Amino acid sequence: MNYNKISPENGARVELHDKLKLTGAEISINYMPAGASVPFVHAHKQNEEIYTVLEGKGSMVIDGETVELKAGDWLRVSPAAKRQMFAAPDEGLRYLCIQVKENSLEGYTMEDGVPC
Amino acid sequence: MNYNKISPENGARVELHDKLKLTGAEISINYMPAGASVPFVHAHKQNEEIYTVLEGKGSMVIDGETVELKAGDWLRVSPAAKRQMFAAPDEGLRYLCIQVKENSLEGYTMEDGVPC
Repeated sequence: MNYNKISPENGARVELHDKLKLTGAEISINYMPAGASVPFVHAHKQNEEIYTVLEGKGSMVIDGETVELKAGDWLRVSPAAKRQMFAAPDEGLRYLCIQVKENSLEGYTMEDGVPC
Repeated sequence: MNYNKISPENGARVELHDKLKLTGAEISINYMPAGASVPFVHAHKQNEEIYTVLEGKGSMVIDGETVELKAGDWLRVSPAAKRQMFAAPDEGLRYLCIQVKENSLEGYTMEDGVPC
């Protein structure tokens, strides 16, 4: 099968890797209500993480520095960085987290694309 | 620098690879008005593409088959598949396209994450 499609319901966390049969990324759709946070600090062994905020606002503490985030923002985080995501005290946060292996991309767009 | 953050303006196509210093993915934010389409069919050499619709509706023709798409849908497309994206005749389409190298992801989440 050359493609897979899903229509996840809005709400709880959804992890797409298995559902979409991804082989180059894991992607999660996440929601935290106002005042909530991911309950731990974490880093990664190999994976770059890319975050984007779909709705709401919050912040990420990265190696002790607070980075404010609002809808439409994009953030790349290196594997070794120690990170923790927080929803704003007065507003929930819906966001994507994309995990990819650092330095795994070779060509892209014009180098990798083939007009048919 | 252990992270990069940007706040792209809504509107024209934005390619994130250079702006965010990505190393494992290229991500584009795309908008097509009602009735528009990507003006060519393309495939890829190495890269899996992952699409999600942020707003509006449209369709992708994949190897001759039409796959309908609406806000919230997710789609994985294999490198070899011949694809072309269309906005609906009566509604524009805002979507993300994530390019990653097929089979590049090794561990993820619990295997790759390190609690701190």
